Amino acid sequence: MSRFKHIAVVGAGLIGGSIVLGVARRQLAPTLTCWSRSDASRKFLRNLGVAKVFETAADAVRGADLIVIATPVDCMAEICREISPALSPGSIVTDVGSVKVSILQDATVLPAHVTFIGSHPMAGSEKAGASHAQENLFQDRLCFLTPTGKEPSASLEKLQGFWKDLGSRLFTCSAKQHDAMVAAVSHIPHAAASALILTVASLPEFNSNSAGSGLKDTTRIAAGEENLWTGILLANAQPIATGLAEFEKQCRRLRLAIEQGNAEEVSSFLKAAKKIRQSLDEAK
Amino acid sequence: MSRFKHIAVVGAGLIGGSIVLGVARRQLAPTLTCWSRSDASRKFLRNLGVAKVFETAADAVRGADLIVIATPVDCMAEICREISPALSPGSIVTDVGSVKVSILQDATVLPAHVTFIGSHPMAGSEKAGASHAQENLFQDRLCFLTPTGKEPSASLEKLQGFWKDLGSRLFTCSAKQHDAMVAAVSHIPHAAASALILTVASLPEFNSNSAGSGLKDTTRIAAGEENLWTGILLANAQPIATGLAEFEKQCRRLRLAIEQGNAEEVSSFLKAAKKIRQSLDEAK
Repeated sequence: MSRFKHIAVVGAGLIGGSIVLGVARRQLAPTLTCWSRSDASRKFLRNLGVAKVFETAADAVRGADLIVIATPVDCMAEICREISPALSPGSIVTDVGSVKVSILQDATVLPAHVTFIGSHPMAGSEKAGASHAQENLFQDRLCFLTPTGKEPSASLEKLQGFWKDLGSRLFTCSAKQHDAMVAAVSHIPHAAASALILTVASLPEFNSNSAGSGLKDTTRIAAGEENLWTGILLANAQPIATGLAEFEKQCRRLRLAIEQGNAEEVSSFLKAAKKIRQSLDEAK
Repeated sequence: MSRFKHIAVVGAGLIGGSIVLGVARRQLAPTLTCWSRSDASRKFLRNLGVAKVFETAADAVRGADLIVIATPVDCMAEICREISPALSPGSIVTDVGSVKVSILQDATVLPAHVTFIGSHPMAGSEKAGASHAQENLFQDRLCFLTPTGKEPSASLEKLQGFWKDLGSRLFTCSAKQHDAMVAAVSHIPHAAASALILTVASLPEFNSNSAGSGLKDTTRIAAGEENLWTGILLANAQPIATGLAEFEKQCRRLRLAIEQGNAEEVSSFLKAAKKIRQSLDEAK
């Protein structure tokens, strides 16, 4: 028997679309509905024929016992207000945003008769839109869950089961801890990659034909959609700004050692970086 | 008929080993010799059985008409001195280093009866050593050639033919132009990736188990061998330091916009970065 009778996905881009496909493929609920802001995505989803596609978010969530909000993080408050009147008592609402403290705040407008628990599946891509959705996008990927501790434990367990059904590995922590962790492994790297490609392209002898896999890999994530990422960077501003300030210091430290021809300092810097980077490939 | 009668590879790690394999596989010369500083690499190369392996660099180059020096860039001057007495008149000497101005200087100790032309195949990897060598490492990869203009044109043409035989696409420019170009697309990204992984790992909530493909790709090149890269960063210090200073400015600009909650500024920064990064995938 399914954990949920009716799953609704609000905002069906890359992540939301992949949830629709994953739920449909695994038959995780007898009823599956969705909504997307974009006409093109709604049309695309209708053509897939795996979920009932609605013209409004409120219509899409009516009667659902699990609602997954997968819009950009800066739309969260607006979506919560919009769907609130249509939510059924006892339903579980979650999201997929890359920040969790600000979203917990946004979710306070939801009615008291529903349970909100934040989720964050780490399965993005620089490719946006439902047309890039994949039914196995969450397979073996980390998914954060950030309960406050006030939720009914049965609701948390059902939501954990949902993500496990999609193949995710779960990590449960506070919203604040999540935001600091993800600033380190995702948001600061995104900011750095964007600053790096702007920098190298501004140098007088830059020639894109000479870019090898080093530059391409280092800056791949900078191809991400700017509005999505503006929302993320601003919603998690404090840990990101702190990390970027530290990053500027480290860059300066390496630059000064290079300017001074200090081989020992450059080598120990690069060696420390190498050891940490190599350990990432060993981590699970 | 082969362009060369005897090709010698001095320093057979990842790049040199791949040249040995590529030359052997394509039968680019009737005689193929090599030397590596490391006992393990010499043993590995002997076991491959495709080239005669010598105990000294001088012995390896004796009688060769093409000598490829593939040692770390900070060994170049020493190697040039060491092999000079054994070089045959009329032979062509090249290297594979990631910097070219300083290497051109190092090569001035070579005897006047040989022709030195700098090469730089852009085909590195964070994996060092002959055991990672691949016979097709240079296939479809860019290779810089940096003649001074004083070389016999026949020598330049023979060297161009050699790299083309290994599958490379050629780009010919001055050593100075090369160094500025490669600072932008390779050396500055390497420095940034090293500073980034050191930074994020120093943040209090960093957890390597939560690192996704974003952080891994962004910092992959930081796993490179530190002594090799120390030599490169110091040998090309000026363009790298200039670029890193600009990078620090761009990071600061983005950080201030985030701290100020300036969505317009953050979005225009990320959008400009996205456009440039997307253009890299379109470049050839």
